[in-house]
Amino acid sequence: MRKFGVIGVGHVGVTVAYTLVTKGIADELVLIDKNEKLAVAEQLDLQDCQARLDTTTKIKVQDYSELKDADVLFVTAGNIHALDNNSGNRWVEFEYTREIVKDIAPKIAKSGFNGVLVDTMNPCDAIAQYLQKEAGFTSEQCLATGTFLDTARMQRVVAEQFGTNSKNVGGYVLGEHGESQFVAWSTVTVNNHPLKEYAKAKGKELDLNDLEDEIRHGGWAIHSGKGYTSFGIGTCAVKLAQSVISDAQLECPVSTYNKKYDTYLGQPAVVGKGGVQYVNELHLTDEEEAKFKNSANTIKEKFATMYERA
Amino acid sequence: MRKFGVIGVGHVGVTVAYTLVTKGIADELVLIDKNEKLAVAEQLDLQDCQARLDTTTKIKVQDYSELKDADVLFVTAGNIHALDNNSGNRWVEFEYTREIVKDIAPKIAKSGFNGVLVDTMNPCDAIAQYLQKEAGFTSEQCLATGTFLDTARMQRVVAEQFGTNSKNVGGYVLGEHGESQFVAWSTVTVNNHPLKEYAKAKGKELDLNDLEDEIRHGGWAIHSGKGYTSFGIGTCAVKLAQSVISDAQLECPVSTYNKKYDTYLGQPAVVGKGGVQYVNELHLTDEEEAKFKNSANTIKEKFATMYERA
Amino acid sequence: MRKFGVIGVGHVGVTVAYTLVTKGIADELVLIDKNEKLAVAEQLDLQDCQARLDTTTKIKVQDYSELKDADVLFVTAGNIHALDNNSGNRWVEFEYTREIVKDIAPKIAKSGFNGVLVDTMNPCDAIAQYLQKEAGFTSEQCLATGTFLDTARMQRVVAEQFGTNSKNVGGYVLGEHGESQFVAWSTVTVNNHPLKEYAKAKGKELDLNDLEDEIRHGGWAIHSGKGYTSFGIGTCAVKLAQSVISDAQLECPVSTYNKKYDTYLGQPAVVGKGGVQYVNELHLTDEEEAKFKNSANTIKEKFATMYERA
Amino acid sequence: MRKFGVIGVGHVGVTVAYTLVTKGIADELVLIDKNEKLAVAEQLDLQDCQARLDTTTKIKVQDYSELKDADVLFVTAGNIHALDNNSGNRWVEFEYTREIVKDIAPKIAKSGFNGVLVDTMNPCDAIAQYLQKEAGFTSEQCLATGTFLDTARMQRVVAEQFGTNSKNVGGYVLGEHGESQFVAWSTVTVNNHPLKEYAKAKGKELDLNDLEDEIRHGGWAIHSGKGYTSFGIGTCAVKLAQSVISDAQLECPVSTYNKKYDTYLGQPAVVGKGGVQYVNELHLTDEEEAKFKNSANTIKEKFATMYERA
Repeated sequence: MRKFGVIGVGHVGVTVAYTLVTKGIADELVLIDKNEKLAVAEQLDLQDCQARLDTTTKIKVQDYSELKDADVLFVTAGNIHALDNNSGNRWVEFEYTREIVKDIAPKIAKSGFNGVLVDTMNPCDAIAQYLQKEAGFTSEQCLATGTFLDTARMQRVVAEQFGTNSKNVGGYVLGEHGESQFVAWSTVTVNNHPLKEYAKAKGKELDLNDLEDEIRHGGWAIHSGKGYTSFGIGTCAVKLAQSVISDAQLECPVSTYNKKYDTYLGQPAVVGKGGVQYVNELHLTDEEEAKFKNSANTIKEKFATMYERA
Repeated sequence: MRKFGVIGVGHVGVTVAYTLVTKGIADELVLIDKNEKLAVAEQLDLQDCQARLDTTTKIKVQDYSELKDADVLFVTAGNIHALDNNSGNRWVEFEYTREIVKDIAPKIAKSGFNGVLVDTMNPCDAIAQYLQKEAGFTSEQCLATGTFLDTARMQRVVAEQFGTNSKNVGGYVLGEHGESQFVAWSTVTVNNHPLKEYAKAKGKELDLNDLEDEIRHGGWAIHSGKGYTSFGIGTCAVKLAQSVISDAQLECPVSTYNKKYDTYLGQPAVVGKGGVQYVNELHLTDEEEAKFKNSANTIKEKFATMYERA
Repeated sequence: MRKFGVIGVGHVGVTVAYTLVTKGIADELVLIDKNEKLAVAEQLDLQDCQARLDTTTKIKVQDYSELKDADVLFVTAGNIHALDNNSGNRWVEFEYTREIVKDIAPKIAKSGFNGVLVDTMNPCDAIAQYLQKEAGFTSEQCLATGTFLDTARMQRVVAEQFGTNSKNVGGYVLGEHGESQFVAWSTVTVNNHPLKEYAKAKGKELDLNDLEDEIRHGGWAIHSGKGYTSFGIGTCAVKLAQSVISDAQLECPVSTYNKKYDTYLGQPAVVGKGGVQYVNELHLTDEEEAKFKNSANTIKEKFATMYERA
Repeated sequence: MRKFGVIGVGHVGVTVAYTLVTKGIADELVLIDKNEKLAVAEQLDLQDCQARLDTTTKIKVQDYSELKDADVLFVTAGNIHALDNNSGNRWVEFEYTREIVKDIAPKIAKSGFNGVLVDTMNPCDAIAQYLQKEAGFTSEQCLATGTFLDTARMQRVVAEQFGTNSKNVGGYVLGEHGESQFVAWSTVTVNNHPLKEYAKAKGKELDLNDLEDEIRHGGWAIHSGKGYTSFGIGTCAVKLAQSVISDAQLECPVSTYNKKYDTYLGQPAVVGKGGVQYVNELHLTDEEEAKFKNSANTIKEKFATMYERA
């Protein structure tokens, strides 16, 4: 039986929940929110789907003890509407989200949950690390979507340049799920060719800085139109959970602990049963490595202030 | 190729869009909203999913001419937040929605669209009829979700009484998707047994009035918790579209034209290519038939005022 | 994690396996066959699908100990090609299949398997009961597809009479998955109307005996063209497994123990976690009840001979 | 509406058909076989699934005129059981399959079919070209699965070396879907790293010749155990059809016309609406280019004999 939990049924959490239900991925689903009326409303709305779907998912609410035997727990709390996000800066959500983690981490720990945590809260990298420590899980067990979403955006933006499918684009966005992230262009491929080679063959001149800006601010483009983002991030989170559930060993760029820089940050990791299985060495250019280090430092510095300010 | 359009990418429209994309049902999808920034944001968010999904859907925006060869058009406009809905009365949305229809109906007509319209706007029955007339479609082509959603709620509520699955519950909620609706209890079955017989065999006393209230106000229970409803209604709308696309001839209680009462109202109809194929005679009890007639009259009266007040 | 086992990877077993893999239902799958080369070949062929599918299923072979933590075990052994089936009589497979059960039952018992057995071997009812006893499971845990397939055929045959969808047809075929089965016409509905009423309303004269013959011999019609049946039965078996896995409590006509007649036979049962949850009383006509009893006796008599002849 | 045809409902054709039905990909499906009883039996078996599936597919048989508005036609005729395939040589099927093409090509042409042909018959490359010419289609419209299946096998074999998922392996098997095929090792990646680099980093010594043999003979390994192959090839064929249907522009190694060598052969091509959209230049090593040329010549020579011997 596949059992999932979702803490925080805002736009992201509820997109994850709906995806798990409507695609028949979840046998059982536990929704938890500080707003009990919201959790119950989402439960009802999802239960109203059951008669129209081929599959069945049991939906429970507000009971941490139900997480005991869950396989994956999505932590998607955080109310970006409470904050001024027009700054394009996910760090403004930091203190707000930290307080949420302080509240839920001991509850998760106490529930006996021993599966894999998938965090989508911002600032993604620091919060995942904070959550991991506060809830007392191993770093393998607690990962964040990190640059998995930014990578999807890179795939979209690059694919559009060539009128091809995002799925034909390989490579990674690395580092912080935030301003200091960067596209590791040396890893980017189109139709299995290195991007630069492919662009040359197609007589296409690319302004990589422009593309990178479009990728980095892809979330804000959506945010400015609909007030939040939900589908892209939800799809990424579900994909990771599926890799855990079936021990698929998919390599995905997610936020997980990096030994060299002693911090969580977005890097390709192999995800399976129990969470992150291992991280392969990257072969970046010197310039990319410098950006990677810089992004790591950005996260570390801010992470340090978490405890100071607390 | 399966092509769908969605006019109005509010909560319902975008749930429909996400479902069509994430389940690989749509090959092509056209999103239209009076708020262009919103439509573009939803397009981007859905495109961000593409790299994480197995299937591919082309997503276009704001172009009515793209509807020309679409198979199904969901009309999901209507901003319930603009109105005081705490009244539990969908008629308060009436004038507001009518103005929307006045705006979009000629645009749909002009686009050359000749598929099936699935309307979810409230008040569902009157608006579907108004849309059908204003846009110049046959009544077969233009249907509304009507009591298909209320029936899903009935299935849920009855199933809960017996700890069984909504899918094991048969029967219909009929009439208006609104206050004058009623559960045709004589049609309700549990595990293929008539409800009353089944309840008796299980030694279960049911208060049908209480259950009916819970069913009728199922939407408001969700609305009061999350501010709108989306998943149940979205799932119903997609199910109808699938029945059209594959000419499945599924019998579903939807809002369509009733000859006897000369109005749209919720009744079981067979849905396939081209929309409603035919409506079978119902065998209701006298009491139910009276309720059905009353509900029809309620819709007719209000529908009449549409033109008067305009 | 969802884990399934399949014993016997003939046409039915491998259809079940392919369905579980290609629809992403199984996280882990164990294939066992007395012909090890066949099991390995099917494993390879299914593994060749993995790079083309969105989901991942681990496929293991020939290891009974892997069944220890499986949720559902399909028992689909039985080589109908070894026998003359042109007789249209599933009992000719009886002795052959019994020997298979004698071989596998202790191995299943020894494996520590404690999930739900779904048997498709013929003669379905007697063999399921024999397997249940020999392997030492409760009757709740061990069910057979029984008349679930015959019911699907009834739905198809009746739907064709009215040009409608099989899904719009309700009701049951009951009794033996074999010659003594019968359509419980009093339970059959079309578009939620009793069949007879519906036929009358449509001015349609039905020869129920002809239809019943077509239903009963549906398998042989397929068998005579392709040498076996696989898709219909495979789809039924998977549906039951899904109901177990998600504890869906679907009511399906399956072969399970009937107290009144003290034998396994096809009857509507509620299927969930742990197998058959409960059986509801049927309200058959006297004529149907007599057929039901007769079918039960047919199974009982033949079941008795199993031990005698052994 | 998505409409598909299948000519030849042997193991491959029927796996394709079952996949299209069970995954809800097809709205309409036309099955054609020289053995009418077989086609009708498969139709019945697939129709028996309908009551157990959420989606609906109309299944028609034996009517070429139904192909007129089909989007994709799978040509999967060819009876490998009629031949001694233990030789591991797909060319032995050549003359047999050519006669089939001579029979069906004019019928396809006459039907008015104007979609995309997906050929799985062996010898795949030459037969696809022969079919294209005989039926009078453009080379864009008629493609064969070619080394798409061999590439899936390469992904499996390489993935097994590292205990990872086939989906994490990139790169191509090129040339003939037959003995002269080769793995273009320079294109192979694991977890986005070049294979050789990755193997070195993991301290893994690979015998590429051994791996290549295992890949090339992957089909025969399956064949020797089950007498045919079906799931891997069926899944590949369906994936191509999905790319056509949704105009997904997926780059896949398929058999299509190569200008440089003036023959069909396995190479990466972008597949979308109308079939092959374009072929990108490959950047092979000299050794690989020689193998590619050699494989092209092998196909050309044998293709030439087709007309001579005829």
